[in-house]
Amino acid sequence: MTSVNGAHALLATLTANGVTTCFANPGTSEMHFVAGLDDFAEVHGILCLFEGVATGAADGYARVTGRPAATLLHLGPGLANGWANLHNARRARVPVLNIVGDHATYHATYDAPLQSDIGALASALGWHRSTSASDNVATDTADAIAAAYGPPGRIATLILPADVSWTDLTTAPPTWPVASRPPLVAPDAHELTRALDALRSKRTALLVGGSALDAEQLSLAERIAVATSSKFIVETFPTIMERGAGVASPERLIYVAEFATAQLKDFDALVLVGARDPVSFFAYPDVASVLRATDCELIDVAPPGSDTRAALQALVDDLGAALVAAPAGEVPSAPTGELTTRSLAVALAATLPEDVIVSDESITAGAHFAGAARFAPRHSWMTLTGGAIGMGLPLALGAAVGARRRVLALEADGSMMYTLQALWTMARENLDVTVVGLSNRSYAVLNYERQRVGVIEDGSTSQRMLEIDDPPLDLCALAKGQGVPSVRATTADELVAALRRSYATPGPMFIEAVLPKGLN
Amino acid sequence: MTSVNGAHALLATLTANGVTTCFANPGTSEMHFVAGLDDFAEVHGILCLFEGVATGAADGYARVTGRPAATLLHLGPGLANGWANLHNARRARVPVLNIVGDHATYHATYDAPLQSDIGALASALGWHRSTSASDNVATDTADAIAAAYGPPGRIATLILPADVSWTDLTTAPPTWPVASRPPLVAPDAHELTRALDALRSKRTALLVGGSALDAEQLSLAERIAVATSSKFIVETFPTIMERGAGVASPERLIYVAEFATAQLKDFDALVLVGARDPVSFFAYPDVASVLRATDCELIDVAPPGSDTRAALQALVDDLGAALVAAPAGEVPSAPTGELTTRSLAVALAATLPEDVIVSDESITAGAHFAGAARFAPRHSWMTLTGGAIGMGLPLALGAAVGARRRVLALEADGSMMYTLQALWTMARENLDVTVVGLSNRSYAVLNYERQRVGVIEDGSTSQRMLEIDDPPLDLCALAKGQGVPSVRATTADELVAALRRSYATPGPMFIEAVLPKGLN
Repeated sequence: MTSVNGAHALLATLTANGVTTCFANPGTSEMHFVAGLDDFAEVHGILCLFEGVATGAADGYARVTGRPAATLLHLGPGLANGWANLHNARRARVPVLNIVGDHATYHATYDAPLQSDIGALASALGWHRSTSASDNVATDTADAIAAAYGPPGRIATLILPADVSWTDLTTAPPTWPVASRPPLVAPDAHELTRALDALRSKRTALLVGGSALDAEQLSLAERIAVATSSKFIVETFPTIMERGAGVASPERLIYVAEFATAQLKDFDALVLVGARDPVSFFAYPDVASVLRATDCELIDVAPPGSDTRAALQALVDDLGAALVAAPAGEVPSAPTGELTTRSLAVALAATLPEDVIVSDESITAGAHFAGAARFAPRHSWMTLTGGAIGMGLPLALGAAVGARRRVLALEADGSMMYTLQALWTMARENLDVTVVGLSNRSYAVLNYERQRVGVIEDGSTSQRMLEIDDPPLDLCALAKGQGVPSVRATTADELVAALRRSYATPGPMFIEAVLPKGLN
Repeated sequence: MTSVNGAHALLATLTANGVTTCFANPGTSEMHFVAGLDDFAEVHGILCLFEGVATGAADGYARVTGRPAATLLHLGPGLANGWANLHNARRARVPVLNIVGDHATYHATYDAPLQSDIGALASALGWHRSTSASDNVATDTADAIAAAYGPPGRIATLILPADVSWTDLTTAPPTWPVASRPPLVAPDAHELTRALDALRSKRTALLVGGSALDAEQLSLAERIAVATSSKFIVETFPTIMERGAGVASPERLIYVAEFATAQLKDFDALVLVGARDPVSFFAYPDVASVLRATDCELIDVAPPGSDTRAALQALVDDLGAALVAAPAGEVPSAPTGELTTRSLAVALAATLPEDVIVSDESITAGAHFAGAARFAPRHSWMTLTGGAIGMGLPLALGAAVGARRRVLALEADGSMMYTLQALWTMARENLDVTVVGLSNRSYAVLNYERQRVGVIEDGSTSQRMLEIDDPPLDLCALAKGQGVPSVRATTADELVAALRRSYATPGPMFIEAVLPKGLN
């Protein structure tokens, strides 16, 4: 390059920091950035047809690599379209770097049609800065990457005005800045002492979550629990967790508040490792928001951003907790006959190959999967961390890009319809993603909620607002229309055959699993 | 009802104010509102599979009725998913009432997974309030409706915590409050005098927009222009404008800034009626942001929210401007042969029935439509006011609900992929919508922009980021998959036949118009 503009400075800094994947939905304001891709072959631009796909993909990429991907978004509406999945990524505490193109700095005053308050949108997500001159782009980008890394990981949004992008730097620096990445915070000695005391002398539960869910840390936590006869629980919606044969398999904190309260009611102490003090997902009349007992002592040995592994190792060492033999168990046989949520779960577990990443937005229809896959080959399991549905397909896309491993996406039909455009990018990038679209033609979780709330009668007008079977969705057509081969399974046998075929075939495949209607 | 909870109070107040259409994508926090629908048969709940469909539909409903519809959205992510089309509605200056369910007031402190800064999202759009007690719901709702009405119309967001929704009122009021609707602001006498002076003595252009685009006001503006030999121009992206045989047809302010500057350069005065001082949609290196000449005097006789009709009538009266005979012209004959952007436009104009509402998000592919339809039967034309693509299908949906007239949606393939879920609700509600999906397999407008910017070469890596033909989208499959009958037209003859069939058939139909690739 003879001259270096702001867009080049941004791309050079991304490259210097190893942020070389960019999930993009560009517009006019981002044209110089897009043009710059031709000068930076290391940066892989991946086109998405909707911004929520780009941001959810960045989340999935970060969950499997621990590193941020960039997103490229077009002004306020572009960031807004990506906001819901950024909310999920924020709750997952993963690093994400958004690059949001904006009007030229001098143009903002004219309130042109696409002008909006990007800062308001970005501030609700985490770190954000609007870079004001091309000479600042490199340091602003490095600051944004550092903010994204945390720890804990967070959402960083760099707003890039068009003129900053197209203006040449006064002087290009000799090297591009590399973001510092501070170490994890050491566990607090006082809390560790409290935890040891509770584990030795009180009825204690160990609630593990966040970044503590790899096989090694799960094993450490299990040793602690066995050595002290404590209860070992994982948080309800893990960011990414190792599961399957040979991996410790604690019980999961139950989603339904009343049951979670019962699950925790007998404990005098709750030791948190990478997890938060658990609260009800929603509030309900006469149901407590806080799930532990009112007199249950809270001990947090590793808040988000701290070294969960060191905390667990310290507890194991102080307790002299012995190794625990991995429990043996059988993988269920491939089922035949009717396709139900139970036979679905068994079919998934029976066919799962080694080392798959599961993106689980199965909501009610996948309720039995985790249990069925207890002794399946080892796999990684990603869940809906922030409750904003429409995460599963984008997350699968990003994980496939980041890990280059087979991904299994379990996707409820209602949730799929928020970000179905992810299928197109799976086909475009020829990613090894097996998507199982779970057709129950209902917002079944809302039907469950209405039963809890007790206010809506079967067959009423309002109940129709919770059903999506009129007209029926043809999920296979929606996948085929975006270039993804698809097949419909109406029996367990057909599902098993389709799964095996997909695992044996490079590239994406969509399998519509036709389940009984509604909550089953 | 024996008791009245906050949800009932909300629904009763909506009903009392005639806000009886609710485009909904509900979740758990909105369950009591959904349940309440059974007690308020007047309120029509319309289920949408994605929030951007609900908000764009509310925009379309308001454009054709002048009244707000309600949207029902689920917490921060729900509002975020609807935000881009609310941005377009904000630019259209139409009234929209968002009801956003939130966590119970006492639950917010626990930062549950779905907690986020809803206020930050809402504040960037317009009026917003979180209602804090069920006894306040009715007045807060009436205040929100009043805020939505303006004038000018705006986005009002009422945040409804779950406990406010489910808690009974201390005492239900004897009647429900009705929002006051202030009259339009009278035109400023001083500005009218300045306008008369300019029209009589200077080279003047009359730029008309906003709420001044019905046939009567267009006629008044034309009389003023003819009487004073002034130029009559309408803004580039009208909210809703009458067009066709017998309707005055001014030239449109050109989208491309360089051309718009040339269009305006010879005028010493610019008289605004319901329009804004025009600025470039985007900024470009060495292109001015302000489109009128630097020494062009600006006269604003009717800013948004004021009485454009009174302003135009006053000018007509003071000038004694005579009636202008409607120009005669021919509707083009139905074309045959190759399907191009030109034959497409002719086919659309040749087949258009009387009184259709056109939702135009055709971007580059529909460039010739407005010209071809100059003498077509009278129709209403709605365009992309805020530049956030993904508006066309939801807008068509909402207009069809509000007006119960045939709607023609001209939808570019790239834009369609943002909110294609609108098709499902069209089928569900059996709305008379003819959707023409314009397949050019490209973000053609960005290819145009890249040519202007001059930075991306044909066939480069980056240019591939502007093409959406790999894999190709099967638009018909995407429509069929959502229950909308569909047909592919590869020639002008096929398109004409398909259009005629759709107009003769109740309910929605999707027509994929296969155009030459890219910018043509």
